[in-house]
Amino acid sequence: MKLQHVIESQQFTLPMLNELFGLADQMGALIGRGGTLDYQHKIMASLFYEPSTRTRFSFESAMLRLGGKIMSTERAQDFSSVSYGESLDDTIRVVAHYADVIVLRHNQIGAVKRAAAISSIPVINAGDGKGGQHPTQALLDLYTIYKETQTIDGVKVALVGNLLDGRTVRSLAYLLGKFERVKIYFVAPTTLQMRQDILEYLNRHHVWYTLESDFLKILPEVDVVYMTRIEEEKMPAASIEKPFKRYFIDEEVMKLMKSDAILMHPLPRLNEISPAVDTDPRAAYFRQTKNGVCIRMALLASVLNP
Amino acid sequence: MKLQHVIESQQFTLPMLNELFGLADQMGALIGRGGTLDYQHKIMASLFYEPSTRTRFSFESAMLRLGGKIMSTERAQDFSSVSYGESLDDTIRVVAHYADVIVLRHNQIGAVKRAAAISSIPVINAGDGKGGQHPTQALLDLYTIYKETQTIDGVKVALVGNLLDGRTVRSLAYLLGKFERVKIYFVAPTTLQMRQDILEYLNRHHVWYTLESDFLKILPEVDVVYMTRIEEEKMPAASIEKPFKRYFIDEEVMKLMKSDAILMHPLPRLNEISPAVDTDPRAAYFRQTKNGVCIRMALLASVLNP
Amino acid sequence: MKLQHVIESQQFTLPMLNELFGLADQMGALIGRGGTLDYQHKIMASLFYEPSTRTRFSFESAMLRLGGKIMSTERAQDFSSVSYGESLDDTIRVVAHYADVIVLRHNQIGAVKRAAAISSIPVINAGDGKGGQHPTQALLDLYTIYKETQTIDGVKVALVGNLLDGRTVRSLAYLLGKFERVKIYFVAPTTLQMRQDILEYLNRHHVWYTLESDFLKILPEVDVVYMTRIEEEKMPAASIEKPFKRYFIDEEVMKLMKSDAILMHPLPRLNEISPAVDTDPRAAYFRQTKNGVCIRMALLASVLNP
Repeated sequence: MKLQHVIESQQFTLPMLNELFGLADQMGALIGRGGTLDYQHKIMASLFYEPSTRTRFSFESAMLRLGGKIMSTERAQDFSSVSYGESLDDTIRVVAHYADVIVLRHNQIGAVKRAAAISSIPVINAGDGKGGQHPTQALLDLYTIYKETQTIDGVKVALVGNLLDGRTVRSLAYLLGKFERVKIYFVAPTTLQMRQDILEYLNRHHVWYTLESDFLKILPEVDVVYMTRIEEEKMPAASIEKPFKRYFIDEEVMKLMKSDAILMHPLPRLNEISPAVDTDPRAAYFRQTKNGVCIRMALLASVLNP
Repeated sequence: MKLQHVIESQQFTLPMLNELFGLADQMGALIGRGGTLDYQHKIMASLFYEPSTRTRFSFESAMLRLGGKIMSTERAQDFSSVSYGESLDDTIRVVAHYADVIVLRHNQIGAVKRAAAISSIPVINAGDGKGGQHPTQALLDLYTIYKETQTIDGVKVALVGNLLDGRTVRSLAYLLGKFERVKIYFVAPTTLQMRQDILEYLNRHHVWYTLESDFLKILPEVDVVYMTRIEEEKMPAASIEKPFKRYFIDEEVMKLMKSDAILMHPLPRLNEISPAVDTDPRAAYFRQTKNGVCIRMALLASVLNP
Repeated sequence: MKLQHVIESQQFTLPMLNELFGLADQMGALIGRGGTLDYQHKIMASLFYEPSTRTRFSFESAMLRLGGKIMSTERAQDFSSVSYGESLDDTIRVVAHYADVIVLRHNQIGAVKRAAAISSIPVINAGDGKGGQHPTQALLDLYTIYKETQTIDGVKVALVGNLLDGRTVRSLAYLLGKFERVKIYFVAPTTLQMRQDILEYLNRHHVWYTLESDFLKILPEVDVVYMTRIEEEKMPAASIEKPFKRYFIDEEVMKLMKSDAILMHPLPRLNEISPAVDTDPRAAYFRQTKNGVCIRMALLASVLNP
């Protein structure tokens, strides 16, 4: 697969997702046997306008595992010591002469799309703006479902937490909408439910979904529980009295889950999942992290010519 | 060519410049064919006392393209967690045991010279102080003129903008002064003209120059237009009324330039050059960036024993 | 030697120290001939919760000299852009999927021990808390004594300065206590003398020591003078009048030292040692820095499977 840039989830068709996941599988095998590929002449520039060590390390690990090289900044706004107002366009044009691929994290929605439009080398979106895209997170989430459940076809997924504000669940719902036989359970207090635009998108694509607020009722039905952060102050009054009671998982709650279901979380977690659950084999959130490296290796390999 | 340190423009003689540019040409070819040289056992330490991602990335790209390795800090003043007052001398002596070459950016004039005097490994000046040296910038500027015009001999160069405060134009004027048949046009409001010391230096070296304030008059005559930042608040009252009118280039102004002239800028730009000009083949400022990597590869190779 | 983690000085037995020093000798030879070992598939993550470029660069140099790869942060507290309160445990579990070894610097005592307990990859302590451990510093100090004096057996060591607060001298005293025939001279104002816990430890291990405040009296007797920072404001009134007079070394004071004694310092120094002394062959503090890279190479090699 040859990609030019990685800008948004929408750019991936079903055949592309299949090919990407196959490539990610190969990357996992490569890590397992301790090899690298022929990318030793390639340089990845991590150009972060806000610090996010987690995402940066994941991409840098991916590039190093491929055999490539990295250079890195988490304060790209200090790009020059003489002018703090340089345009993103100029910075991108300059870095395009230093590296072979740019991983860009920006605080403005659409910044990555604009950067890709003028860049002479591939640009990968590592998150742009709180309400923007973070496509590699959505891809690794979907890849985790694929890898853990063997298939995405027909899978029942509960997306749980503050769905109103969650960038991750929105992107994942979008990607899941490409698979017709998937069933999606949006589990949230009514004030924090999934926005209308995503629901309409799923309607158009004939994807089954339901809106629920009763987490414990849904839990035994689904194959995947995707928990997200839910800030205490955003919970409706009824649940504030027993904070996180409704959207909280501990060993007791785990008993309600199917024996072959999996529990996911984009991390970092607040208190949604008790650490006591970490050793349960169904707890897949750290495997998700590992899958992130494989997906990013596959994406880097797809935009670079080795 | 074997260099011990890279401290200031003055250390380069004409034969050295010729050899350096030849080496930089080879480095460009190396990047083009995706190879590296035998520097895989060499470590470059980027020791920056102020952030300048642009300069740091340029050097790091150069070292990685050579096949070498990098370690990096943009907050060298936090060198130790227990004492914030360690002398530069001690820090250099320590880093000299960690790396094979130090790229030093400092906020004090003369700091790099002092560091080189006590370092057991090569030190390269990546800028010391606002009024100090930034020799690798001057070298890449000169290399760009050489590469774009095929020769430096007899070339007519306009240096435009705030020449009073510009570190870049001062260093470049110095290097140009080594070529007797060069003609230099200093184009600036009289209050921001080139300082006397450089003019006297050019007199001593019998280099032709003229002082001008009329940018549009000079433009059709020269082979190289080197624009620099000129802050609005520094412009004399007459031009503030039509800010940057006099020292501003857009598509219309480009028509006055010779068809084989080139337009340079050290970047970052403010408003001196309209982005509409970027696609004009005479706009050489992003090629300047690329040339910077080649020059720095040549310099690193010249101070290191592969 | 196979180590799982490097957490505290106490974990090293005498046979382990011997083996480690032999390995460090080999690493020094490797650096000398410009080779690397077979670690090109291994990634070290520098996870620093406070900046300490000195320690970070020392580890990163060690990993690069081994042939390995690095990724790096000095602001690990910004691990995620969405939550500043992620637990260290979760961060470690995530980084364990990105790298093959974690070098951890933390501001809380015991943090590294906790991290090692849950990490699936080796963790090396690069300092945890002001009063905590910094075992690789103690190991490189001991290795320097071994290397410079050919043996540790029977060596007479003066530990000088603010012994009450010094983390380094405490760790070194602990390691020296493993060698029965060593003689330790604790040289400090009585208000800043070594704490009782270390003295009791030495009693239990039958190690000879003495408490002294007269630096100049001890100087001619010992084989190793280990100076440490002593802040002017902590000195008793008598010596404040002639600040640092008592615990200060210049060329005159050096004349009192044996011709084959060595002068050490963990660096950074304040004013305890005059720079005029640096060229004296007995001044070993910059060689200490170099030994640090060798020891850290040996430790990294011991926790990694190449």
